[in-house]
Parts: sequence; C-alpha cells; structure tokens
Amino acid sequence: MTVSPLAPAKFPDLPEIGGVTFATTAAGVKYQGRADVMLALMTAGTTIAGVFTRSATRAAPVLDCQAKLGGDSAGSAAVLVNSGNANAFTGRSGADSVAALADAVARQTSVPQSRVFTASTGVIGEPLPHERIIAKISELHANQSGRGMEDAAKAIMTTDTFAKAATAEVDIDGKKVKIAGIAKGSGMIAPDMATMLVYIFTDAAIGQGDLQTLLSDLNARTFNCITVDSDTSTSDTLLVAATGTSGVDVTGHADFAEALHKIMRNLAHQVVRDGEGATKFVEVRVTGAQDDADAHKVALAIANSPLVKTAIAGEDANWGRVVMAVGKSGAAADRDRLSIRFGEITVAENGWRAPDYLEEAASAYMKNPELELGVDLGLGTGESTVWTCDLTHGYITINADYRS
Amino acid sequence: MTVSPLAPAKFPDLPEIGGVTFATTAAGVKYQGRADVMLALMTAGTTIAGVFTRSATRAAPVLDCQAKLGGDSAGSAAVLVNSGNANAFTGRSGADSVAALADAVARQTSVPQSRVFTASTGVIGEPLPHERIIAKISELHANQSGRGMEDAAKAIMTTDTFAKAATAEVDIDGKKVKIAGIAKGSGMIAPDMATMLVYIFTDAAIGQGDLQTLLSDLNARTFNCITVDSDTSTSDTLLVAATGTSGVDVTGHADFAEALHKIMRNLAHQVVRDGEGATKFVEVRVTGAQDDADAHKVALAIANSPLVKTAIAGEDANWGRVVMAVGKSGAAADRDRLSIRFGEITVAENGWRAPDYLEEAASAYMKNPELELGVDLGLGTGESTVWTCDLTHGYITINADYRS
Repeated sequence: MTVSPLAPAKFPDLPEIGGVTFATTAAGVKYQGRADVMLALMTAGTTIAGVFTRSATRAAPVLDCQAKLGGDSAGSAAVLVNSGNANAFTGRSGADSVAALADAVARQTSVPQSRVFTASTGVIGEPLPHERIIAKISELHANQSGRGMEDAAKAIMTTDTFAKAATAEVDIDGKKVKIAGIAKGSGMIAPDMATMLVYIFTDAAIGQGDLQTLLSDLNARTFNCITVDSDTSTSDTLLVAATGTSGVDVTGHADFAEALHKIMRNLAHQVVRDGEGATKFVEVRVTGAQDDADAHKVALAIANSPLVKTAIAGEDANWGRVVMAVGKSGAAADRDRLSIRFGEITVAENGWRAPDYLEEAASAYMKNPELELGVDLGLGTGESTVWTCDLTHGYITINADYRS
Repeated sequence: MTVSPLAPAKFPDLPEIGGVTFATTAAGVKYQGRADVMLALMTAGTTIAGVFTRSATRAAPVLDCQAKLGGDSAGSAAVLVNSGNANAFTGRSGADSVAALADAVARQTSVPQSRVFTASTGVIGEPLPHERIIAKISELHANQSGRGMEDAAKAIMTTDTFAKAATAEVDIDGKKVKIAGIAKGSGMIAPDMATMLVYIFTDAAIGQGDLQTLLSDLNARTFNCITVDSDTSTSDTLLVAATGTSGVDVTGHADFAEALHKIMRNLAHQVVRDGEGATKFVEVRVTGAQDDADAHKVALAIANSPLVKTAIAGEDANWGRVVMAVGKSGAAADRDRLSIRFGEITVAENGWRAPDYLEEAASAYMKNPELELGVDLGLGTGESTVWTCDLTHGYITINADYRS
C-alpha cells in the first residue's frame, strides 16, 4: 500500500498524558504479523464524552458505548479497540462478544465493566473471535506505558496508508494542559475496512456533561464536515477522555476549546487526506446562504458529487458541475446571484461566467494538491466549510477489487 | 465511443404517429458533421404534459417550458431541441436565446409562440449560438416527415452510446392507439453532456389536465426511480404530446396508462443501460418498509452508494455495504429484521449472514450483466423499485477527462 500523497510530512511527537497508559499486541484477529489490538487505561475520575455514527444499522460496540456514556465517572476507565473485524451485523453474537470483552478487561484490570468502552473495525458480518483478544488482556495489562500512544495509532489502522495523530498544549491560569489524539479512517466510509475511530486524551479536568456539550459542538464543525464518498460507517466512534491529572479545571475556557477544536480539525483533515485513492485535498467553503443549515447542504452536495470530484481528479475547473450541485442540494438558491471561485479566481458570478475569467488561470490553479472551492449564494449570512478529496481510479481499484 | 454492453439488441421499428412530423439538420451548434437539431411539429389541438428537473439552477429552456405548460391547447405545437450546448447558467442571454428561437419557429411555421417548447443539452455556461439554429428553421420546416422520429432520436444524443426509443400499440374500444417515444441520457446526470431528454408522442385523445396527472404519476415510478450517479441535471425534460388523430379518447383507460407506463419504464431503463461506464444493470427492490417513501429512501441510498456500486463492478456480493446503505438512508430500519438477497440467493437475514449462504453461489450470480438486489426491512408494507448501474473505471475516465 503506497502512502497517500496528501499525508502530513511527519508523525507528531506525542506527549505523555497524565493518567493514561497504552499497550498494543498482535492477537491475530484477522491480520497476521502486526499489532491489531490496543488497550488504553485511564485513571479513576476520568470523564469521557463521545459521538457516534447515526446509522440505523450500528455495530454492537457502538450501541454498548452509547449505553455506557454519561454514567458515573468515579472509577477508572478503559478503551479496547481491535482492527480486522468490525463485529457489525453479527446478530446476537455481536453483543455477546462485547460483553465478554468488557467482562475480561474488568476482571483483569479492576476497571468497572460499565467503564470499558470497546470498538471494532474491519470486515462486517463475521463473528468476532473475541477469545483471541481475551487471551491477550493480561499481556496488554502488564505492558501499559504512558508512551504507547503512537503504537496505539498504528494498531487501529485498517486500509489507512498512514497513522494519524495530533497534539496541543494550552496554558490555562499559568498551568499547562496537554491534549493528544489518534484517529483511523480512510473515508467516512464503508462498513468493511474504513470505519472512522478517534480517541483524544487530555489531562484537563472537566465534568462529563460539559465535555459532552463541547465535543458535540466541535464535532459539528469538524468530523461532521468531512466526506470522502458520502457513505456512512456502521461503527464510527469518537471518544474524548479527560483525566484531570493536570489539576486544571478547563470548564468554559475558550483556549482549551480552541485547542481541542484544532486537534479535531487536524485529525478530520488527516482522514480526508487518507481518503481512498485521494490525490487532492479540497476545502469547500459556502457563504451567503439563507442559514447555516442551507450552507451545509450546499457544501455537502458539492463535496459528495461524483461529477465535481471526478472533475477535480482531472484538474478541470468545471464550474458547471458546481452549479449543478448547488441546484440539486435542496437549499434555497438563486441562479442569478450565485458566484463561484476556485482559490482566488472568480469563475462565475451573476448567473454567468465571470467577464474576466481565463480558463488557463483556473486550469493552472487546479494542478495544486490542495484546493479551495468557494460558493457565495448571495442570499443571506449562512455559511459552512466542508473538506473532501477527489474521486479517482484509485477509489475504484480499492473498492471494486477489495473483497472478492 | 464504444456502444454500452447493456444496449438493447436493436433499435425498434417506430411507427408514424398521426399528427406529428419531424425533421433534423446539422446546424453546427458545437458538433461538426452530424445532425444536432430536431424540430417536431404537432397538429392543432395536441395536448402536452411535462415533468422537469427540480434543480434550483434550472436552465432557461426548462423555465420557459414550465411557464408554457398548461396553457390553451387549441393551436398547433412544436418541439425544438439542440445538442452541443445546454443554454444553462447563461444569465439573461439564456432567456433571450429561448425567446429568439420560439419567435423564429412561430414566424415560419405558424405555431403560436406560446406552444413552441425548446430544450438544449450540451456544455453549460456558454452562450447558445441561436442564430445558427434559426438559420436552419425554414429547412427544418420544409423537410418535415412522419417517418423522421429515428433521426430525431439521433440528433439529440450527446455522450449517449446508442439512440433510445420505445413504442407500443393499444386496442381501445376496438380502435388502435399508437405511442412512441425517444430519449437521450447517459446518466441522470451532469450539466455538461448528459442531461436527460424524453419526448413521447401518441395519437390518443386526452385532455391536458388528465394527461399531466397520468404523466406525473407514471414518472414517479419510472424516471424518478433511476440513478446513475446521484447527480441531477439542470435541464432534464420529459414531454408527452397527444395529438388525438386516432379519434380515441383514452381518458381513464387503464390499457393506455399501462402502455405509456411500459414505454416510460423502457426508456428509463435504456438511460441506465447507457450510464457512463456501466457494465451492470441493477434492479434494487425494497420491500417491508414502514411506508413507500421510506422504501424509496432505502432503495436510492443503495443505488447511489459508491461502495455498493463499486462492489457490483467488482462482481463482489458485498452485502455488508448494503447493510451500510440501509443504515445511512434515514429510513426506519431494524438491523435484526433485515434480510438481503442477490437474485434468488438470501445472503443475510435476522441481523446476520444467512445460515446456508454460500459465497461461491453469490459470486457466480454477480457475474451476470443484469442483477437484482432485494432488501426486506421486515417492518411494514412499503415498497419501491429503483434501477441503477455499477460504478467503474469507465465512469472516472469519462468524467475526469471530459472538459480539460
């Protein structure tokens, strides 16, 4: 597997986060010869917030995490993730596997079972061989280390072409607060191999309710604003754990929210940069909509349009396809107030090609690996930004040849 | 351009329809050396019904047709169509071009201007050189023939790989009624070159209001149930013209409705069979939904999913991706009541892989060029059938390389 041309130059130096340790191992769930399970343990009192796929066919571990979230934060906590098998659409055995895993972790680590959060990513519809994972839990417990987060990022990869992480440090009231997160995902995407999983850890102190509110708000502007192919996983999971070991209460602190926002946006962008077959990273910025919801509809219609995405792959400034996507979005739009730009180049305005538009300038711009596509609807103040990638032969090759 | 492997074996023998004549010519709108304009003339009293794209960025001729529909049916009528230029997103000049064309047809043929219906398909954002078409109208008027429908089907093609037509004859009260229609379209699709245009002619007698009601009803079960790539044209137009020359009033006649339904479904299927890059024709049948609207949502989510479509291209019975599409559709669904079949092979039921499912049997089935994918939600009696094609390297090649 070739690394995506849009991958960051290097993997970041991840700090230790007080109150969190990690270990990984090769349990042979499906892959051979690589780590495929990670266990993170968090100190007592850690608050955990999460957001999940809205799919009506959610996987068993997602349902279990949703049921556990918001419970008592007194005890220690654990996150257990395997790659290679999604434990999705596995009938009653799916929930049984989740319960067996949580029970095994609880017995061996003294984390309450109600605080063991599992996730699985990989092939769908195959029973999870959970006994292979359970056989490794004592080893995972014995090998815990505060420096294990990079290995954890690797263990949860499936079709990802690079491991994904981001980190930040914030000064609050003269004290340092650390945040670090890891992600996997190579699209929004499919139930097979490209579920999106994100785990963010901080030593900040913040109540569960406040953390959940902040997370949901930031998620609406980050992970809910990326799309590779418009398909939605059965297993998408994002958890944020705040251990409180810094002794700094960040409740309501704008600097903490800003740092968490940046990490989430950075990780979301990395998922798009590893989009299946991607050769272009595209920011779609919609302004002038009747309201933000309409702007988001238009931005997603553009970012999900196969015709827009193939034009971008072909380095073609095909603004006609952008007009088409605006028209089909369902949002209020007036053809004669619409303006469209690629980067700084205005290509269309007032319902027609811009008078000083030069095809050569736009074509030259389209050769960049990072593109900005702007649409102003000229109707109001609603706005939205969405990130996506192009649709290439690579996507077809990866997805038409994957399972058979 | 290679003809689609899914094309019908032969072009049908089209009958003459009393009261309708056709002519085509090479006006050089964009293409050189081929017919690119067709003019159909219909006798006085012909009733005309239509359905159009719902795009908010509709092209000028669509807006003009919508304004004219439902007016007085007393005079004769005309349909004028060009390929090569869509006259879409062309600002004020778009409406001016439409008015100039309708005016020229009215002056030279004595059809009232309010009964001249135009359509344009081809590249977007370029002003339509309508004077090239106007220069040919006297020739098109002089060459009218009742046998010109096949040539008309060819003149309106753009990226189509085959000309599309269908015909039927119905006995009503011992008399014959004829129906024949032509279509162009190579996807739902794009504003560039793949607008869908459909013109159906009959010698039946039926009032405009009744014809419109029937058309809208049948459209919901035919052209609104096909998708190639989920993108919606700015120019889609379907007109049905009833000349009444058979002397048979078909108002309320089930046999006529049935024949029109078959022609519309046949033409809709031909558009899918000519879908860009298509190698598989797929019927998606959803049953057991809470209501028909939910069934339609699920069927379209499956038919539009890039991951389902690439799996079909790869001849992979990847039912996990079907589960994913059901889950993201927004329709009510219960994972544990869901069943999925490919052809006659049940692959999943009760929230899990079917107990006697054999991968080999499903893989063998997927090699067929025509596939049926069935989903039963197990919740109610809602149902919907949608037709689509696969997503292949051919689609990327056609659309990533088209304009630049």
